[in-house]
Order: sequence, then structure tokens, then C-alpha cells
Amino acid sequence: MSRFWSELTASLVPYVPGEQPKDQRYIKLNTNENPYPPSPKVIEALRHAANADLRLYPDPSCDALRETVASYYGLGKEQIFVGNGSDEILAFAFPAFFTAAKPILFPDVTYTFYPVYAQLYGLSYETVPTDERFVIDPQRYGAHNGGVVLPNPNAPTARLLSIHGIKQILDANSDQVVIIDEAYIDFGGQSAIPLIADYPNLLVVQTLSKSRSLAGLRVGLAMGHPDLIEGLNRIKNSFNSYTLDRLALAGAIASFEDQAYFEETNRKIQATRERTTEALAGIGFEVIESQANFVFATCPRRSAQELFAELKKRGILVRYFNKPRIDQYLRISIGTDEEMDALLDALGQILAEA
Amino acid sequence: MSRFWSELTASLVPYVPGEQPKDQRYIKLNTNENPYPPSPKVIEALRHAANADLRLYPDPSCDALRETVASYYGLGKEQIFVGNGSDEILAFAFPAFFTAAKPILFPDVTYTFYPVYAQLYGLSYETVPTDERFVIDPQRYGAHNGGVVLPNPNAPTARLLSIHGIKQILDANSDQVVIIDEAYIDFGGQSAIPLIADYPNLLVVQTLSKSRSLAGLRVGLAMGHPDLIEGLNRIKNSFNSYTLDRLALAGAIASFEDQAYFEETNRKIQATRERTTEALAGIGFEVIESQANFVFATCPRRSAQELFAELKKRGILVRYFNKPRIDQYLRISIGTDEEMDALLDALGQILAEA
Repeated sequence: MSRFWSELTASLVPYVPGEQPKDQRYIKLNTNENPYPPSPKVIEALRHAANADLRLYPDPSCDALRETVASYYGLGKEQIFVGNGSDEILAFAFPAFFTAAKPILFPDVTYTFYPVYAQLYGLSYETVPTDERFVIDPQRYGAHNGGVVLPNPNAPTARLLSIHGIKQILDANSDQVVIIDEAYIDFGGQSAIPLIADYPNLLVVQTLSKSRSLAGLRVGLAMGHPDLIEGLNRIKNSFNSYTLDRLALAGAIASFEDQAYFEETNRKIQATRERTTEALAGIGFEVIESQANFVFATCPRRSAQELFAELKKRGILVRYFNKPRIDQYLRISIGTDEEMDALLDALGQILAEA
Repeated sequence: MSRFWSELTASLVPYVPGEQPKDQRYIKLNTNENPYPPSPKVIEALRHAANADLRLYPDPSCDALRETVASYYGLGKEQIFVGNGSDEILAFAFPAFFTAAKPILFPDVTYTFYPVYAQLYGLSYETVPTDERFVIDPQRYGAHNGGVVLPNPNAPTARLLSIHGIKQILDANSDQVVIIDEAYIDFGGQSAIPLIADYPNLLVVQTLSKSRSLAGLRVGLAMGHPDLIEGLNRIKNSFNSYTLDRLALAGAIASFEDQAYFEETNRKIQATRERTTEALAGIGFEVIESQANFVFATCPRRSAQELFAELKKRGILVRYFNKPRIDQYLRISIGTDEEMDALLDALGQILAEA
């Protein structure tokens, strides 16, 4: 606490990201990073873009990347916004579309950055309970609210909501914005992007951090009606003109130009996820059905916090949330087959010792 | 205007950056970019960092870069904040330290992003008149305000305030934060960084965009008392955990490791500035004394708007602000000697035709 802080600064409870360890090499299954490197074409594009032009500002409107994404999804450039990670886009979307007057709705178990954004901008929100297996009921996202934000698949539960369910929510909220946060959609879900044509209240947010192996490059996307994109631009251009550097722009474009690599790595991750889910069930875990690059699992025989600590001792990092409803669960990112074998071995040992 | 926008979104008048032309190659003297490329060591570091580790998130606390900057300026790591350009740091600093209750003070002629930040966060501000030659009077930045923000040298005037003047402002504002925005300090000014030891209310903001030729990489710095740095971190960590990508971090570190290149390019720019100032005076311009990498100049014989348009026709871009008090001035970035010769030739021709 400092006398120089604003009341807002003093009141904030900031988001805490998953650990980025510096002390030793872990098998790192705690922040849903992709176990495979970015496409070799991305690396090549980045090395090429590391040149004398870095003395010049990047294009503040990011036209080349927006054209690439528009063409990839069959949309117009004016339907695309890009940002410094999907978190930055969400940080622009909350003040762009939501207010203090009516509460934003999001699930009780979801991405823990949402209440932090609401707090930063003085917005009100209400959480909507998921059922005992974390299933989202679209009928609970009805009127009398100021907007909806929903990850699909949800995090940290990994549960996918059907396009039918998304439509129900969009129909019930035709006067306010519904943000579908598709950070994990490429791992087996069906994107809501085709609904943009019919729903001017839909904003779909994606990231290159997970399915495109570029967490280190910081690029996120938003797709929606041009009015929503303009709203995001008004906030962004009142905050920072140049949010994506020249390298991020070049690398992101190259990523969309290597579809084969994208499909191959995503296929591998999904196969490893299915194998891991079965193996975890085999040693006594209950695993929530996942369409993401992580699984959310609980072991009735042992406390999740202990399992987390024991795994860490053995050099394996997973994510543990000490929060109501999910404090008996571990969120485990899908690594390579070898990494998941090491995890399963370690869990087997830990459970055998108990 | 859209029915989905918040009142805030609808009310904003976003900042408009200088033009980044895509239609043709201009001699680009409009956004104060450095005419020299980044250090070859920066390019090398970037190419090296374009590797498989991009699949992993960057260090959210940016420790390695903060240690580099701390050691460069003889400060502690806890006195350093880094951001996605100095604009992002200012966008965090305004809500971190300022409120709606008391006005922020800044000069009437200054960086036009300041009122935009105030508007974004619902903060109040008052502008303080500079004199007829744009000189800042420190005695006018006294009590009854909620903080001060001041570029030094000022932009777009290029005028430097002495360290004595900065101290006067700091002394008169011991209960509120004074932000000294040193985007252009390396081109001949004296930094306020040594004052940090004595003034817990001082935040110094710098950028790698100008003197380090890295406008395209988006890296800014802030230096101050650990309490102020913690305040910035509270806002940043409620907004976006990872604002600097892995490449920006690697390139910025390398930039601080090539002092010889930094000094050589800055010396060249200052020499070109002095030569350009004399030559402009020689063809009838009045040039404000500059300690920046640009000059602010007026020609009593011809309207600035016309000069701007005539230069653009000839393939030379400078910055023109259609705003009270400065609408007869051009802001001209210092390019290479060859670029400034082309500018001077073009101005000579335009004035001869009049």
C-alpha cells in the first residue's frame, strides 16, 4: 500500500498466471502451452522480419494480419481485430461493451481473469452455477444482464458447449454482447465463427498461444460484426496505438499459412489427450470430458493439493486452484506422449505410496 | 455508433498516430523514428530468440530485461517496470496514480495522448499554458492538483526543461505522482533518473522506439520508487499478464548491451539536427531550440498546412497538427543527412514558387 496509489490500484486483486519456473527444468503441464514448437515457417518468417525495418513503427491497424485471418475464416477484414494475446482483447472488450449498470454473466467455474477485468473497470458481474459435473446450462444465461462471457471449451473444466447451446445464449441476449472465448476451440470443438453472419451481438475471441504453439509471441484474434470491431478499436486507440510488434505480426501471418503443420500437431495432441484420459481413469481418476489441450481430473483417493505438491517434487508441474468447487481437481496440460507417460508413472508411484 | 457499445466507447475520441503510409515509399519524417537501423547485435539476438521456445509463455515479470535496465541505470530491479511501448506504460500509470477527484496537470502544448488516457479512465485534467515560445514554467505546476505528466523534452515542441525545473515541480508536488516522459531524453537532455533516489513521487518513463531504433519492437521502460512500480504492476496484472513477447524481451536486452552503437547513432542524429536547424533558419524558418530527434519549426511566409501538403506531393512526410497555437508549425523528424538535404531542397523549391 502506498499513498501514491489511486483507490482503484489499492483495491485491485490482480490475476495470478500459472508459474513460469526459472529454478529448474520441469515437465511443464501447468499453463496449457503446446508441447510442439511453432511451425518451421513461422520461425523462418520471424528470422526474416528481424531486420532494419524494426526502426519503423508497425502498422497500427495490423492490416496484413487482419487480411490473412479474414481470408482464413471467410470473413471481411472489418470483422477482424487483433491484439497482444487474447487477454488484451478481453481487457478491451469488457469496457467496450459492458457497464456497471447491468451485470455481466459468466460461469461460476471459469477463467479467473474475468472478475479481474470487471474489477479493473468498475463493472458488475454475476456468476452462473454449472452443474456438479461443470456442465453449462444455456437456459440460465437469459435476460436482465448486461452481457455474457463464456470460454468454449470452458477453462479449467475443458467442457465444450454445443453450437446449439451457444445459439440459445445468443438468442436470449440479442440486446447485449456475448463473448465466446475460444482459446481452446481448435482441439476438437466447433467454432461459433459461422454464427457471426446471423448474430451482430457475437464476438468470438481466439489466440495463437495454444493450438498454434505461439504463447511466447502474444497474438490474439477477435471476430465479429464490424460495429463490435470498431468498438474494440475505439478502446485500443485510446490505450496504445501499436499493440503488436513487427515480429508478432510477421509470425502470426506465417502461422496461418501452414495449415498442414497446424492440423498435424493438433491431431497429435488430441490423440495424446484420449490416451491420457483413459490411463488416468485406469489409475482411479475421474476425468471431465475434454475438448481442450488439457484435462481436468480428480482422484477420490487423494487430495489434489497433495498430488500437485508430490508431482512438483518429482519435477512435474500441473495447475492446482485452491478455490471452492474445484479444489479437488488438477488441470493437466497435454504434453508429448513421453511427458504424459512420465506424469502417469509419477501419479502411479504417488498413489501406490499412499 | 452501435447499440452494443458502452457509453464510454461511444464517448471516446481516440488518439490518431502519425501516418504509416502503404501506398508509396516516402522520405518519412513524420513519426520521429530513428533513421538508423537497430544495432546488429539486436538483430542477431532476435534471430537467435526465434526458436522452439516460442511455444512457451514469456516471463510475465520480465526479470531478465528489468535486471539489464537496473544495472544500466544503477537502480534495483524493483525500481524498473517494462511495457509494450511507453504508451502502454502511460496507459497503466494514469489509472494507477491519478483519480477523478483532482485534476492532472500537463502543458497546453504537449503529447496529445494524455487527454485521451484521462478520458478513457474518467480522470480530470487541466492544461497549463506554455509561453509564446512554448517554454514550460515550473512554478505553474503547484498544489491543488492530482498529479503531473510532462514530456521532457516536450513534444511536439522539442523544448527541454532543466533538471532544476523538474526538481521545482517535484518539490511542489510531494503528495502526488509526477511522471516525466523521457521518450526523447537521449538526444541531448539530462535524465531525471538520478532524482529517483530523493523523490518517491517521481516516475520516469522511457522508450526504445526513438534513440534505440526499435519502434517496431514495442518496448518501454519506467523507473521509480518500488511503490510506484508495484502500483503499475497491480494495474498491468489486472489487464494482461504477458505484455512483452519473448522476442521483444531478447531484443531489448541486446540493445542495452551495445552502448557504442547507441552513442554513435545518437551523436549522428544530433549533428544532423544542428545542421538542419541552421539550414531551416537560412531559408526563413523559425526553429524552436531542440534537444530531441525532431525540430518544431514555422515559416512566417507560408502556411504550415500548405507546406505539409506540398512536401507530401514531393514524397516527403512531416507531421502537421491542425490545433490551436501550433497550426503554423511543422514537426520534422531528424532523418539521415541525405534525407534532410532532400527536405531542405524541397522546402527551398516550394518557397521559391510562392
